[in-house]
Amino acid sequence: MKQDKGLLLVLSGPAGVGKGTVCSTLRESDANITYSVSATTRAPREGEVDGVNYYFKTRQAFEDMIAKGELLEWAQYVNNYYGTPLPYVEKSLESGNDIMLEIEVQGAEKVKERYPDGVFIFLMPPSLEELKNRIVNRGTESMDTIHERMTVAKDELDTMDMYDYVVVNDEVESAVERIRAILTAEHCRKDRLIEKYKEQLEAEN
Amino acid sequence: MKQDKGLLLVLSGPAGVGKGTVCSTLRESDANITYSVSATTRAPREGEVDGVNYYFKTRQAFEDMIAKGELLEWAQYVNNYYGTPLPYVEKSLESGNDIMLEIEVQGAEKVKERYPDGVFIFLMPPSLEELKNRIVNRGTESMDTIHERMTVAKDELDTMDMYDYVVVNDEVESAVERIRAILTAEHCRKDRLIEKYKEQLEAEN
Repeated sequence: MKQDKGLLLVLSGPAGVGKGTVCSTLRESDANITYSVSATTRAPREGEVDGVNYYFKTRQAFEDMIAKGELLEWAQYVNNYYGTPLPYVEKSLESGNDIMLEIEVQGAEKVKERYPDGVFIFLMPPSLEELKNRIVNRGTESMDTIHERMTVAKDELDTMDMYDYVVVNDEVESAVERIRAILTAEHCRKDRLIEKYKEQLEAEN
Repeated sequence: MKQDKGLLLVLSGPAGVGKGTVCSTLRESDANITYSVSATTRAPREGEVDGVNYYFKTRQAFEDMIAKGELLEWAQYVNNYYGTPLPYVEKSLESGNDIMLEIEVQGAEKVKERYPDGVFIFLMPPSLEELKNRIVNRGTESMDTIHERMTVAKDELDTMDMYDYVVVNDEVESAVERIRAILTAEHCRKDRLIEKYKEQLEAEN
């Protein structure tokens, strides 16, 4: 009997939107989900534990992982590498555990290529919501400011297009609640369930 | 500024699965949703109130509604008509309220034709889940019984194909919880949100 595969959840969004806070609040809740641990070449900060906060790697070791295709996605920020080790993700999914990646938008695009069936959640700053209100109450801002905000909003929308869900991070608790609801709902999606039932039926007939 | 449209939720499933109980438990919870009131030609039972439990109609009045296209779906059971009046559904959606229809599978098919963007939830009896367990622990049932159950399951699967979600009615409370999660998640779907933001942006540029 084939084990159900776990769901791959990808939480991403613009820098500074609060992905880390939302993700750690989700971890503290009782959501039944595992979390991917990133690999990095940056030095551990005080209190950080290897294999818990990050897998701490030398540049050489990290570049070996890249060469061997052992990273689902990776990027370089401020002279350090950051990436998602593939084996742990694959092992979790195969053993039927849901796994969440909290990554930057560029990384999310790479994951989408490899796992198009993943659940992609775009965490959005409340600014576009605010923007909405500004447009509604128009006339209170200069045309230049509105124009600038529109440009930012349009760039965000272009990135947003590959995501399945958009969660506004207005309050951390309510953002977490919505992500939990998405997880529950995704487990009820017919497309995910029907294959399971069909396999069972065909196996017997 | 265009008002967001409400979501149309359709709860259906095989006869006897417990749609009514799930729906009334959902009503008692604080879910922010309105419920469609069906029209019928059957006589009111004691305590039933016109416009609350049903819109009670004469056969002539019901057939006039059919002729005028005022019903979203209708069917005849045991010599009585049952149907969903269209104006209330349309008014709710236009004013941005989510509305739930609890209807039979034939009716759900008609609603799907008219509102393909609705959220269709198939309430499933736990029997297919039980069936799953039986297949896993095979040998405990005769081949005939298994075969019969397979046929029923296959018919159910064919109907299931047009739905977005499958919720197993194992316990009413947890079925209701899953439906509430689906409602929350659907409000976060990018496809529903991106149009809204694009309209706002285009209106200003």
